[in-house]
Amino acid sequence: MKTIFIGAGNVAWHLAMLFFKNKNVQITHIWSRNKENAELLKDKLDKNIEIYHSLDSLDFSKTDADLAILSIADGAFESVLSKLILPKNCILAHTSGAQPMEILKLANYNSIKNIGVFYPLQTFSKAKEVDFSSIPFCIEANNKEIEEKLTSLANQFSQKVFQVSSKDRSILHVAAVFVCNFSNYLWTISETILKEKNLPFDMMKPLLEETLQKALEINPSNAQTGPAIRNDEKVIEKHLNMIEEMNLNSNFSRIYKLMTESIQQK
Amino acid sequence: MKTIFIGAGNVAWHLAMLFFKNKNVQITHIWSRNKENAELLKDKLDKNIEIYHSLDSLDFSKTDADLAILSIADGAFESVLSKLILPKNCILAHTSGAQPMEILKLANYNSIKNIGVFYPLQTFSKAKEVDFSSIPFCIEANNKEIEEKLTSLANQFSQKVFQVSSKDRSILHVAAVFVCNFSNYLWTISETILKEKNLPFDMMKPLLEETLQKALEINPSNAQTGPAIRNDEKVIEKHLNMIEEMNLNSNFSRIYKLMTESIQQK
Repeated sequence: MKTIFIGAGNVAWHLAMLFFKNKNVQITHIWSRNKENAELLKDKLDKNIEIYHSLDSLDFSKTDADLAILSIADGAFESVLSKLILPKNCILAHTSGAQPMEILKLANYNSIKNIGVFYPLQTFSKAKEVDFSSIPFCIEANNKEIEEKLTSLANQFSQKVFQVSSKDRSILHVAAVFVCNFSNYLWTISETILKEKNLPFDMMKPLLEETLQKALEINPSNAQTGPAIRNDEKVIEKHLNMIEEMNLNSNFSRIYKLMTESIQQK
Repeated sequence: MKTIFIGAGNVAWHLAMLFFKNKNVQITHIWSRNKENAELLKDKLDKNIEIYHSLDSLDFSKTDADLAILSIADGAFESVLSKLILPKNCILAHTSGAQPMEILKLANYNSIKNIGVFYPLQTFSKAKEVDFSSIPFCIEANNKEIEEKLTSLANQFSQKVFQVSSKDRSILHVAAVFVCNFSNYLWTISETILKEKNLPFDMMKPLLEETLQKALEINPSNAQTGPAIRNDEKVIEKHLNMIEEMNLNSNFSRIYKLMTESIQQK
């Protein structure tokens, strides 16, 4: 399966590395507006891969690609798709949680009859390797044959491959933002508070691990503890005073207040 | 070490179970305002334990207790301590993250010369067993001898025993609320959104695990991903619309907005 990567950000990076290890896939081209990212990725893969980076070099009609993986920021979809030309019968699949499949019709749809979604429900950073085997892949396609092809490709990497509609995928994506991005930000607040007082974030790690294990085992709705749910107003007031005295970021106390109120309303 | 438990809530419950397995500790009494909790705990431990539950039965001066573990809601400290009488030389130690050690002087301090703190930095629910060996214990005492006794006791359960001042402990506690209680609430939001659309929270679990592993490995401040940090305004707007349309709880969109703004200000 000759494959083009359009994008060289975090998701493209990890998917390309994954595809590269699979003998059924051959990566032939990488396009990225960020040339350096594309070069770095190519260096990790195969010296024969061709690199492009301008919007005017999105015409791949002369290639014999079977699959183009569009893995770019949601905000770049329109500009990239309006320039993208693929060979006939090449599958165009995006990897976004938030974008409907149909957005791919913004591309030169005369030549692009096969569209789909290949969305790994996971967080990716270049600095951290991931194990794909347990990652849920959400697959969607505009016809049964393409759905089967994308499903079969995903099955080579993961035990958990699902057919998911654009609507359900966008619900999963918003739920994922709470689980991942916002949780990570709360942990950053904790790290910041501790750093200010020269206390090691390492002391939080067993608590982090246990909080997660508990949520996995009995589900978060059964696992809530803490001063908010106990209506421990004195402790809440003390915490707010401490946060405000540290004078780090006024959002920290706003977040503390809002989260506490919400837990109490439960 | 003859030990009295004052309190039978989540922390007392797990500590009592832990102490019970240790041959150097003998639990002789459990006091809890909630009689049923105390009875349930006693049933798990030793039929010979004496149970008390009224504020007027906090006089333990006739016992030969060496240690009293005060493990009650922060809001109950004053009422319980004002009635508590312990035998001479008995150590009184509380397990709270938020309370200073000195609050124990509210007890009959003529007889209580030895006070301290025995704070396990962890989240406890009765429904979930915990492995104490990696839990940080924060120890404090009003004299070296008691500090050594409490440290030695904690060392029997955990590899990670620290001497921590009341001030540092309260910083750790507020940081823990962000890491644990607030994170868990975000996961509950995710669970609620998915449930509304008949999608399984199980699909989030690999993401949850990876988000945590990444934070442990490269620290949360280096691990932030998502639409907020990418300034992906279209996705953010779409998410907010979806959350508001679901009409589940107006706090969900307030939390989404505030977390997004804060991440973007970074």
